[in-house]
Amino acid sequence: MLGRLNHVAIAVPDLGAASAVYRTTLGAKVTDPQALPEHGVTVVFIDVGNTKIELLEPLGENSSIAGFLQKNPAGGMHHVCYEVADIIAARDQLKASGMRILGEGEPKTGAHGKPVLFLHPKDFQGTLVELEQI
Amino acid sequence: MLGRLNHVAIAVPDLGAASAVYRTTLGAKVTDPQALPEHGVTVVFIDVGNTKIELLEPLGENSSIAGFLQKNPAGGMHHVCYEVADIIAARDQLKASGMRILGEGEPKTGAHGKPVLFLHPKDFQGTLVELEQI
Repeated sequence: MLGRLNHVAIAVPDLGAASAVYRTTLGAKVTDPQALPEHGVTVVFIDVGNTKIELLEPLGENSSIAGFLQKNPAGGMHHVCYEVADIIAARDQLKASGMRILGEGEPKTGAHGKPVLFLHPKDFQGTLVELEQI
Repeated sequence: MLGRLNHVAIAVPDLGAASAVYRTTLGAKVTDPQALPEHGVTVVFIDVGNTKIELLEPLGENSSIAGFLQKNPAGGMHHVCYEVADIIAARDQLKASGMRILGEGEPKTGAHGKPVLFLHPKDFQGTLVELEQI
């Protein structure tokens, strides 16, 4: 079921400052910021050749990463995103194995315009897992 | 400077249980456990096609991940590892930019038998960064 690692997401308090570290100090290619109001975040992607790093900054008053940044004010690794061929089949198979889907269990549209779902970190050793249909 | 993402490391309290989740529930290929006494961990790698997930379990009394698991008893994302062509050149360039290298600043031998270094998470938005020379 598990496909390629689409991205690793890192929550940051200041997207401009974080982008500058990756662009200038590490010499990486960083995209322009993209606002995702439905997810309560503004994102940039960093292309590292075989996968991407996604930097997330809170957007709006009910950002999904506000709580994470309260606990980790400097930022930190927030989730990993794996690609799946069929997100509904993957969801149903995971549910049948007793894994919990976050929210209402229906895919939302993610940063790449594709359907995404999040799995409960307690079912994956404290790691928040996103699935994205490719 | 920044090369491919070699792996994402996830610290886990029970390597056998965590391996079973990835192998059975997610259908992924998981290697046999490998003890790395110099790093105080036992590791397995999960091949996800374009990169790897490394699961880390504490080994010995002075494990480098013991403190992390005390704060995160269920486990969690521990570090990301990027490939670099020349680890000494990368280290010297990062030091010149004011970035801090953990430990004594000299490469150790990592899980793949290659030289590795760790960078201070405070310089990378709360993310522990490993560099591995490929």
